[in-house]
Amino acid sequence: MRDILVIGIGAGDPDYLTLQAVKAIGRADVFFLLDKGEEKDSLIALRRRILAEHARAGHRVAVGQDPARDRTPADYTGTIADWRARRADVCASLIAGLADGETGAFLVWGDPSLYDSTIGILDDLLSRGLEFRHEVIPGISSVSALAAQHRIGLNRVGRPFQVTTGRRLAENGIPEGVDDVVVMLDANPDLARYPEADVYWGAYLGTDDELLAAGPAAEVAGKIAQVRTEARTRHGWIMDTYLLRRR
Amino acid sequence: MRDILVIGIGAGDPDYLTLQAVKAIGRADVFFLLDKGEEKDSLIALRRRILAEHARAGHRVAVGQDPARDRTPADYTGTIADWRARRADVCASLIAGLADGETGAFLVWGDPSLYDSTIGILDDLLSRGLEFRHEVIPGISSVSALAAQHRIGLNRVGRPFQVTTGRRLAENGIPEGVDDVVVMLDANPDLARYPEADVYWGAYLGTDDELLAAGPAAEVAGKIAQVRTEARTRHGWIMDTYLLRRR
Repeated sequence: MRDILVIGIGAGDPDYLTLQAVKAIGRADVFFLLDKGEEKDSLIALRRRILAEHARAGHRVAVGQDPARDRTPADYTGTIADWRARRADVCASLIAGLADGETGAFLVWGDPSLYDSTIGILDDLLSRGLEFRHEVIPGISSVSALAAQHRIGLNRVGRPFQVTTGRRLAENGIPEGVDDVVVMLDANPDLARYPEADVYWGAYLGTDDELLAAGPAAEVAGKIAQVRTEARTRHGWIMDTYLLRRR
Repeated sequence: MRDILVIGIGAGDPDYLTLQAVKAIGRADVFFLLDKGEEKDSLIALRRRILAEHARAGHRVAVGQDPARDRTPADYTGTIADWRARRADVCASLIAGLADGETGAFLVWGDPSLYDSTIGILDDLLSRGLEFRHEVIPGISSVSALAAQHRIGLNRVGRPFQVTTGRRLAENGIPEGVDDVVVMLDANPDLARYPEADVYWGAYLGTDDELLAAGPAAEVAGKIAQVRTEARTRHGWIMDTYLLRRR
């Protein structure tokens, strides 16, 4: 039998690793990497640092080629499904490289339960008949990191909050019945659209490059747009998230 | 100047502590405890274990009396506001016991950003003019733990999810536009009301007493109700959460 660990490594700060994740990393024989080609230097550096510090001597790293993905698809769900199927093929061949009794691990940025495809891919592989056991280790998500760095709660007393994507927010605005919305994966935040809300924004959370901004959304929209553009130019990429809080 | 650390210790498993939390615990001179009187033995035991393992020699524990709280108030928000104000008084006197240059810490179950009052209380104290610096250390929430133990994502591809309370769910049902709802603080789950959904339920998450159940909500409602009643009788308390996922 083969064991697969899906390990949340937290959102940026190597100290976001949990003791459970540290132990899991120490148990793995092989770490599976999906090479994205354009991958972010600081993410690679973080992963290297984590493996150097916590992986056992003699561990292997197995690299698969992450399939290309259309970033601005007309059919979002269909495109993602197709990409996931091709990604599952790559993962299947990585897992097939495990010897009987070995443990393989995927290191997942943030928390594997939030806007990450690894768990879904493993479910696909199980339904295709591939045999393995798997375990999920939770991690500090960028959402928790955002709230901690701004020293705010995500909900207000007795109230709900919603986590959504930039795409959905652009289509629907702040949903009915919810005053607090965390927005993930927004390539082009249009914060000026929400004069009724405050925004708590963060980029490169938990890293040395962390950027934070907060204030009335319409007032800070311009400043955040400028900071984002400059940071993206400087780093070649940006990963950010924000909470919109209706006043 | 005095420093206050709000440290998320994760939801139940001592190994959910992050390295950042371990370091923060090691930096604190005083740990503030709010004695709830009826407090749960296993929570006290977890906290003791964490302090014994990670707090520095010579640390102090300062215990405040947590004010009584009406658990079934007619005016929920008002009652909570009043309870929070009295709790803030208790916290103010705990913080006043810190010598200049000392660091005090609140250990928060799960993640301080989720349905916890500590951050809000500190904001109240700052607005009253009390002077201190404070820092928030995120933790593994019961929501992340629930998803990890069930090996599921909280969202589906490109879709939002909502986190709400049992009270709100009972009033409004599964909200429009959302197919995935995490429900916290539900004293009396009525899962049979949601035949359109699957449920992923967990109690005492991360502890040796952890209970998990999943399936079509209407089908497993009876079994979960029975397991909850038995467990609450056995332990004297229950802390559980669940995800409702529309099919």
